Amino acid sequence: MERYHIVIDTLGSDKGPEAILEGAKLVLEEFENIDVTLVGDENVIKAANLPSERIKIIHAPETVTNYDSPVEAFYNKKASVSVFKAVEECSKDSQAIGIISAGNTGALLVGTLRYLLNEKRQRPALAAILPNMQHGFTCLVDTGASIDCGATQLVEFAHLGTDFMRKLYRIESPRVGLLSNGSEPTKGNHLVKETYPLLAKEEGINFVGNIEGSKALSGMCDVLVAEGFAGNQVLKNSEGMAVNLITEIIKFGKKTGNEEITKQIAGYIMKTYDFESLGAGIMLGARKYVMKCRGSSGAMAIKNTAKILVNIVNNKTFYE
Amino acid sequence: MERYHIVIDTLGSDKGPEAILEGAKLVLEEFENIDVTLVGDENVIKAANLPSERIKIIHAPETVTNYDSPVEAFYNKKASVSVFKAVEECSKDSQAIGIISAGNTGALLVGTLRYLLNEKRQRPALAAILPNMQHGFTCLVDTGASIDCGATQLVEFAHLGTDFMRKLYRIESPRVGLLSNGSEPTKGNHLVKETYPLLAKEEGINFVGNIEGSKALSGMCDVLVAEGFAGNQVLKNSEGMAVNLITEIIKFGKKTGNEEITKQIAGYIMKTYDFESLGAGIMLGARKYVMKCRGSSGAMAIKNTAKILVNIVNNKTFYE
Repeated sequence: MERYHIVIDTLGSDKGPEAILEGAKLVLEEFENIDVTLVGDENVIKAANLPSERIKIIHAPETVTNYDSPVEAFYNKKASVSVFKAVEECSKDSQAIGIISAGNTGALLVGTLRYLLNEKRQRPALAAILPNMQHGFTCLVDTGASIDCGATQLVEFAHLGTDFMRKLYRIESPRVGLLSNGSEPTKGNHLVKETYPLLAKEEGINFVGNIEGSKALSGMCDVLVAEGFAGNQVLKNSEGMAVNLITEIIKFGKKTGNEEITKQIAGYIMKTYDFESLGAGIMLGARKYVMKCRGSSGAMAIKNTAKILVNIVNNKTFYE
Repeated sequence: MERYHIVIDTLGSDKGPEAILEGAKLVLEEFENIDVTLVGDENVIKAANLPSERIKIIHAPETVTNYDSPVEAFYNKKASVSVFKAVEECSKDSQAIGIISAGNTGALLVGTLRYLLNEKRQRPALAAILPNMQHGFTCLVDTGASIDCGATQLVEFAHLGTDFMRKLYRIESPRVGLLSNGSEPTKGNHLVKETYPLLAKEEGINFVGNIEGSKALSGMCDVLVAEGFAGNQVLKNSEGMAVNLITEIIKFGKKTGNEEITKQIAGYIMKTYDFESLGAGIMLGARKYVMKCRGSSGAMAIKNTAKILVNIVNNKTFYE
């Protein structure tokens, strides 16, 4: 069996490095052929007592917070910041299939831009693979790494999403939708109106037109192209609404003495819409797989994300 | 009891003028002191056989579709388009408290700009009053009437929302949030970053900072300010997710033989999150109340919206 490395940034999760290291432990237990490179505070990593023959430790104890400028942080302290060192290591290590980080998105993007650009030197986009109402998945791209985009960037997103869904989900001609404020071709802000005709004539893109927010996860398209700010709204709002409604269901159960069945229903819904365990965003267009777990990630999210990475490398779908 | 008029645009609903006229009938039945002015195709309106002493009919049989330019339509055929005639009538009739339309949003905005600007000649914003997790309401402004806004416009939205929530919901100092892609002050696109400091120092605005999409309906703010394109995503995505999850709950019930309880749960959730019957958006900043019902509106939506109008005029909250 081929051996792989996964680089894990142990810093940046709200749950602390211990949770991420617990995740690394689960990865090592589940995947015999995966070794991990752990980047962060050496002392904390050593204290986790992971099997030394399967780990490599890189000491880089600093983080980039949501209040720092990622670019400044890169120029001032790239050698000591875990996420930057992690991306650098991933770029250098030929056995490394990818990197997992729950830290600052901007910093991960800056690291990726610096160390993991593909041969076209394309700006990567942060995609999310979201469950849709057709019991399939929709690749939403971009979800917040690229804010204030231009139209040609959105066309690139369409290609990145198309390639990904073709390769991973074996959809021959993925349907590409453009997020707008209405389904008609006349709807949209300046950017959408500029992008629409470009996508319509773009070779290799199966453009199905504008998709409005209510249909974002309807399954009407396989790739949903959005400028990062708007895509972020769709991602986070969908998640927020799922949490809100599940909370309401549980409340209803308590109030009416139907706790057993409401728990089952909540569980059923969460199987599809548990954004927490679906977890990771993926940078499309980078030279290796860069997986962005959310800040609240714990051990299970890290393990699930490692599994996704392994699946991708084996040309399996995200959640096989 | 004081008598009011409500102007109803009978055209533009996907369900046809008959559904809107059925709604007008419900309005007349429920509110003894409300008369209605019905604008649209005279023959169709007459065929509805509403009590002639309580209705006024204005013949304007043309519509603006989602494929037309509202501005061109205004200049070419304003005298025959129902939504324009309806706004005009509302502006002229001193007893008219407002207008209800389920037609094209852009056309309604153009009509409002032409006939119902307030004394400051401010551009109105289209707000939605949405249920939040604190069992209160959040005024989301703008929801899609003003696309490609500037920062000073967003500050105006904050004032319009603040005034509305103070007056209608009797919140002394409504908390104003700014929709962003993260809660930190450093997050946002160019527009958000430009607007943040303006809102922070704006007199009369109780600014509570950036709100991300997952918290849009959390109840962390009473007024959520957004550029129309992004606000539209929040509105429609919330609605879409509510529909998706309710559908899943019903499916679960059928599959597991728990139809009775899942119907109850769906009903319970829909009481709070039924965007369909909550129905209308409201143009803030116009001289009279301009209510925009969604295109799929039927009779009940029209009746509910009329009730909201009456409540507003009586300084009651939206859904009292």
